[in-house]
Amino acid sequence: MSSEKIPYKIYLEENEIPKQWYNVRADMKNKPAPLLNPATLKPMTAEELGVVFCDELVKQELDDTTAYIDIPAEIQDFYKMYRPAPLVRAYCLEKALGTPAKIYYKFEGNNTSGSHKLNSAIAQAYYAKKQGLKGVTTETGAGQWGTALSMACAYLGLDCKVYMVKVSYEQKPFRREVMRTYGAEVTPSPSETTNVGRKILKEHPGTTGSLGCAISEAVEVATTNEGYRYVLGSVLNQVLLHQSVIGLEAKAAMDKYNIKPDIIIGCAGGGSNLGGLISPFMGEKLRGENDYRFIAVEPASCPSFTRGKFAYDFCDTGMICPLAKMYTLGSGFIPSANHAGGLRFHGMSSTLSQLYHDGLMEAVSVEQTSVFEAATQFARVEGILPAPESSHAIRVAIDEALKCKETGEEKTILFGLTGTGYFDMVAYQKYNDGEMSDFIPTDEDLKPGFDSLPKVD
Amino acid sequence: MSSEKIPYKIYLEENEIPKQWYNVRADMKNKPAPLLNPATLKPMTAEELGVVFCDELVKQELDDTTAYIDIPAEIQDFYKMYRPAPLVRAYCLEKALGTPAKIYYKFEGNNTSGSHKLNSAIAQAYYAKKQGLKGVTTETGAGQWGTALSMACAYLGLDCKVYMVKVSYEQKPFRREVMRTYGAEVTPSPSETTNVGRKILKEHPGTTGSLGCAISEAVEVATTNEGYRYVLGSVLNQVLLHQSVIGLEAKAAMDKYNIKPDIIIGCAGGGSNLGGLISPFMGEKLRGENDYRFIAVEPASCPSFTRGKFAYDFCDTGMICPLAKMYTLGSGFIPSANHAGGLRFHGMSSTLSQLYHDGLMEAVSVEQTSVFEAATQFARVEGILPAPESSHAIRVAIDEALKCKETGEEKTILFGLTGTGYFDMVAYQKYNDGEMSDFIPTDEDLKPGFDSLPKVD
Repeated sequence: MSSEKIPYKIYLEENEIPKQWYNVRADMKNKPAPLLNPATLKPMTAEELGVVFCDELVKQELDDTTAYIDIPAEIQDFYKMYRPAPLVRAYCLEKALGTPAKIYYKFEGNNTSGSHKLNSAIAQAYYAKKQGLKGVTTETGAGQWGTALSMACAYLGLDCKVYMVKVSYEQKPFRREVMRTYGAEVTPSPSETTNVGRKILKEHPGTTGSLGCAISEAVEVATTNEGYRYVLGSVLNQVLLHQSVIGLEAKAAMDKYNIKPDIIIGCAGGGSNLGGLISPFMGEKLRGENDYRFIAVEPASCPSFTRGKFAYDFCDTGMICPLAKMYTLGSGFIPSANHAGGLRFHGMSSTLSQLYHDGLMEAVSVEQTSVFEAATQFARVEGILPAPESSHAIRVAIDEALKCKETGEEKTILFGLTGTGYFDMVAYQKYNDGEMSDFIPTDEDLKPGFDSLPKVD
Repeated sequence: MSSEKIPYKIYLEENEIPKQWYNVRADMKNKPAPLLNPATLKPMTAEELGVVFCDELVKQELDDTTAYIDIPAEIQDFYKMYRPAPLVRAYCLEKALGTPAKIYYKFEGNNTSGSHKLNSAIAQAYYAKKQGLKGVTTETGAGQWGTALSMACAYLGLDCKVYMVKVSYEQKPFRREVMRTYGAEVTPSPSETTNVGRKILKEHPGTTGSLGCAISEAVEVATTNEGYRYVLGSVLNQVLLHQSVIGLEAKAAMDKYNIKPDIIIGCAGGGSNLGGLISPFMGEKLRGENDYRFIAVEPASCPSFTRGKFAYDFCDTGMICPLAKMYTLGSGFIPSANHAGGLRFHGMSSTLSQLYHDGLMEAVSVEQTSVFEAATQFARVEGILPAPESSHAIRVAIDEALKCKETGEEKTILFGLTGTGYFDMVAYQKYNDGEMSDFIPTDEDLKPGFDSLPKVD
């Protein structure tokens, strides 16, 4: 089929929205390593995990053999509110670049949460509701996950308690108000509402909080209140499973027009979007049916894949959560201020870490001024104002398209546009004013993180 | 066709996007009164208008006989970036209300400008480019129009100078940064860059500006710089023409499923969205082919239709623009602070004013706390965080649906959801904190406005 016949935006029909999630672990020869109990260093059992997470989600977390898992009808109904998400042919960007490459992006920002996070939020909230729980707790930093979870809980009539890192709570009042508008209870962390919060406030009066501390508070509330469980928006296997809807939809839309991507690109913080986008394509690669290049893009300031170690580590800086084997900079690594708050995580999904370790995908790191340059170029020709996180993928998609311009190759590039940047205008302002700088940690900067790694392997 | 078969979101195919605009004036027996030259009180000629506006737009402004006007291919191409806009069946809202009514909304917020304003921005920018101009000037208050125009100009490589009311420039820095990201030059008004700006600053040092003053500055820059023209985002006949794409798409989507709306509801500031939404339906009513109820919704704090006079008046508070015959509160009326900045205009489109005067449509005014109550209820079940302006239409759609609940009538309601509220979280915060109040002007409050009306009739 000639490219002239491909519409700018490919929307699947409502009945073509995926009805099953794809679990890429089922096709992996080397399975991601299990979560370990930090006290016993033995794999976490379903029972242990069930104290913190909903029962069905624990099942999904541990299941590395079932390839397809039915999406409950209620979640499919919710999907209809914001899915199918469009697969867009970036004709205008291609023209602006003068590249023979064909660029596509899967846009997940057309819902109020403004990002792909809603895909897992609705699933996790649904299972909590089905288990008869009163509510869920979580933490949020940048605010996308908290917003998505608030929306899902409002829809299901579920209580939602969000611990928001105090510095974000104060500096991002608009994010906070979106969550409140959806009925969530938003508490700045550390707070007086938990033991761990009180302890930290006593030890560090005036602290502006951290993601690690907010996780600790959310977990404490979930485990000490009848009828509550904790939910997490990235890193976990279950989250990648829910996010596989991104890749499944993208692949279905491409298959409809006989398009095969050569390169698939996604930004990577904890791995939720990248893992979801590449899942069905990676499945084909794992089964030897098709080959693709996969590129994870991370900020140079927080380079888990490209400069981290593949080791067991804590997911939280408070070191209370199970240990996960992953590419990590160490839970003691404190990333410098980077405007892509969603990519400031020291570790990475265990599933993606294993795939990367096995040479099945590549990773590159990029600096933030070049990311905002790409974001601005993209916005002006494609119309969408991208989130800083998403713009990491745009940067590398543009770089790959420019390589095609040099070589004359007509490669097909697919990237994930995870969300919009409406709540990130402070960062855009810095870029517009020429006041944005880059930070690449030295080996010395990385040392404290590596020193903090637990001795497990 | 049974309602079970109607998808949540109806998307037209790309080739079903309208290829012609519909000019409702062609079917009006009583045409909207012409713009008058404020000096001579005679109708403005094309030549006079051509000093301020692009030639082709002047033609469209004056043409009240051609029913269908071709949409240039380049604009159709741009449409593909963000159109078709979905027609959504509000199943979740219907369920939450327990109403037998069927509620649909045409959602125009799925583009970075976040509103329907882009429909006219691309048209006006296109004709400026086609005329070989260097750029366009405009004013913006709330910022939606300025954002939309910046996007359109970035796409076409046209210079864009935006005069932003100083108080908005300072209080809405994020809106400002979106425009700058799209390459627009944003100047707080009043400024030292124009004669009128310098004069006002001298007379009123420390003023935070007004829309009237910003219009004056933008017009001065357009008329004193070679290769520039002024553009306006509402009120004008040409704007309603461009916005007819909203109604044409909505009608095409409804026709596809044999849906006929009984009631069509839109918020009304200057009339751009309402005029566009109702156009093709009003055409049928004017031609006696079909009947519909049309409801314009305006804020109780700025009730042009429901409490204004039908008279010739200035469109700007600076009284330098042509006189338009319209429902108006008088250019001397200063609306109280209302969070729906886009509805704080003292006048109304001449076309809509004539239709209202002829009894072809209704109007109601609503108070802002009840508007935000509706906005919040809508957001929680439908997922989209609506703009305060759009939420005026939601309020009345819900009210009409609740009347159906009482009477048991299965009416079909269509309303325009013009945009998203991401940049209006200060207002949502006030509502969430219980600190929002209502303001209904007394007759005494309205007097200065009426006293300011020019003596023409």
